[in-house]
Amino acid sequence: MVSFSVQQESSAGAARTGVLRTAHGDIDTPVFMPVGSLGTVKGLDPEEVRQCGYGLILANAYHLYLRPGHHVIAELGGLHTFMQWSGALLTDSGGFQMVSLADLCEVTEDGVVFKSHLDGSLHQLTPERAMEIQAALGSDIMMVLDHCPPFPCSESQARDSVARTTRWAKRCLDAPRRSHQAVFGIVQGSVFPDVRRESAEALAALGFDGYAIGGLSLGETKDTMWEIVSLVISVLPKTAPRYLMGVGLPEDLVEGVWRGIDMFDCVMPTRHGRTGWLFTTTGRILIKHMQYARDERPVDPACACPVCRRFSRAYLRHLFLTNEMLGVRLNTLHNLWYYATLMAEIRAAIRAQRLEAFRAEFYAARQTSEPVTAVGS
Amino acid sequence: MVSFSVQQESSAGAARTGVLRTAHGDIDTPVFMPVGSLGTVKGLDPEEVRQCGYGLILANAYHLYLRPGHHVIAELGGLHTFMQWSGALLTDSGGFQMVSLADLCEVTEDGVVFKSHLDGSLHQLTPERAMEIQAALGSDIMMVLDHCPPFPCSESQARDSVARTTRWAKRCLDAPRRSHQAVFGIVQGSVFPDVRRESAEALAALGFDGYAIGGLSLGETKDTMWEIVSLVISVLPKTAPRYLMGVGLPEDLVEGVWRGIDMFDCVMPTRHGRTGWLFTTTGRILIKHMQYARDERPVDPACACPVCRRFSRAYLRHLFLTNEMLGVRLNTLHNLWYYATLMAEIRAAIRAQRLEAFRAEFYAARQTSEPVTAVGS
Repeated sequence: MVSFSVQQESSAGAARTGVLRTAHGDIDTPVFMPVGSLGTVKGLDPEEVRQCGYGLILANAYHLYLRPGHHVIAELGGLHTFMQWSGALLTDSGGFQMVSLADLCEVTEDGVVFKSHLDGSLHQLTPERAMEIQAALGSDIMMVLDHCPPFPCSESQARDSVARTTRWAKRCLDAPRRSHQAVFGIVQGSVFPDVRRESAEALAALGFDGYAIGGLSLGETKDTMWEIVSLVISVLPKTAPRYLMGVGLPEDLVEGVWRGIDMFDCVMPTRHGRTGWLFTTTGRILIKHMQYARDERPVDPACACPVCRRFSRAYLRHLFLTNEMLGVRLNTLHNLWYYATLMAEIRAAIRAQRLEAFRAEFYAARQTSEPVTAVGS
Repeated sequence: MVSFSVQQESSAGAARTGVLRTAHGDIDTPVFMPVGSLGTVKGLDPEEVRQCGYGLILANAYHLYLRPGHHVIAELGGLHTFMQWSGALLTDSGGFQMVSLADLCEVTEDGVVFKSHLDGSLHQLTPERAMEIQAALGSDIMMVLDHCPPFPCSESQARDSVARTTRWAKRCLDAPRRSHQAVFGIVQGSVFPDVRRESAEALAALGFDGYAIGGLSLGETKDTMWEIVSLVISVLPKTAPRYLMGVGLPEDLVEGVWRGIDMFDCVMPTRHGRTGWLFTTTGRILIKHMQYARDERPVDPACACPVCRRFSRAYLRHLFLTNEMLGVRLNTLHNLWYYATLMAEIRAAIRAQRLEAFRAEFYAARQTSEPVTAVGS
């Protein structure tokens, strides 16, 4: 079983530290989870993900259902064994991927019918099936099948999707799962405060092991996003972990924690690594820029990662411009190390009751960014 | 300076073990050199290349001259520092790449004019310039600029290219280089025994630190290739290392060593890794085959590499079919480990005076290949 306990509440903001106990290790929160949709954090060996300090990563039921198939993974001993990840795993149900990747054919009360983004084949996913797939994968935290409306949508659309998400959440909770597996509900409701409140209340009444906030960062303003986050958190039980799905610029982690978020996931550090964007304590840099051609400094002189300890910006730029795989790999490793370090610093700041000062320093470092540093995109 | 000493001569065949001493470590021969043309062994961290047991790798002056430029690398402390490789480096001059990749515009007595394969820009490379580039890179072993005729070619074409290669070799030898750098000559002559003999004699008379055999594996039969190799070796000084360029199936390593080759390089283990071919003690397997979908065995149960110690064939197949970068990386790591292990076994067999038995066992293991194993190309 998974359990969560709050350890320290911040005197400033709504932040707190906690421990998420799983059958595959204890996780200090607030935590960022690297994305490993297909059973691999793109480009990295699971040992490297560990080295960065991660003990919990995310995989995706939709992707693994399509390839190689959850039955195959179950036969081979489950996803932890399959991908040789000894830490904890959270699996997303795939509700969001069916909207974003697949051709969503029909949503009925029973479930959804979608066309695979790979070969156009038809598949049906029900709440029970979503749980069955995740049970087969053996993840530590399963996500309910939710119905995420598009952005923008009308209030009545949002209300309908919330009602359905609640009914599906109940069915997910009633579905069989393995003894070590927890289930998180997902709050929907688009940008409508009343609908978000109803969604959070209804899920809280069902009693989940944790609560995610879905359907954000889809195009609404940051102000709206944080308003919704704070509102939802005020409704959810304080004793349960709160997970903000798919949101994750460094600034978002700081702001999310400040408002009481315990868990994050985002493709940002991994995808940005593949496109040459590197996170540093003073901002982001785009490694392909000419100004780094003869720059022998590490990406971030303040970083202790295996990339910054050894390689120059000039070498990373060379690897990137020549499409060498090692470049993507080193960029990804650095970015994930940066994210892990940032979260560790945030936790330390909360424990030391200096989160407000930390937050100010975090932004100040970005303002004093050296002139050669490109920030953008 | 680089020095070479023969340690043990095999009682069977013309094989021998030796030690190549460089400013960046001592290398036991016979040795296989992984290819890192652009200053990276594709997909691997230099530490992983070391872990496999390699102490000498190959980079390419042609590629590094075009990107990022040898002056940039020199400014940044040389290629060892640039790519963070603490072992020894051999740089190929790029003569072969100008034939195979670039648009070779003109070969004159002075040198060659070629169009970059990247942007069509015009460049001139002379023997002196090839040495200047390699001196800037700071490699331990520099290769002369040679003139490799196409295959097939006429005997008079071969004779002309050998005469030019010899004159250029002399100019390379006279060009400035750094005190730790050795220069190897390259024997040409296509498939004509007399021309090959003349080439080897002429180069030996000039006195190089080592001798490469170029222009093979271009389409001639294996029998012809090994005849030429044996002939050339019989002419070259016994005290110098002999390097067979660009040849390297596992069978080729065994046969080359048998005939007296001390050094090999080939893209085979790295390129095959990228296309899903994995080398094992019983033959090659193509990891994408359906038969591995639920195969929880390692690639090669007899292999102790970091891939075989942890990951199943089923997982590697999944990574390959989903185009996940980690798949290519693990395949490459396994293949390079296989090659390093094979060379270590060959050296041990020579030292124990049992190379003939080793060679028989090597082929026997391939004949008893399990039925599921696909061998082919």
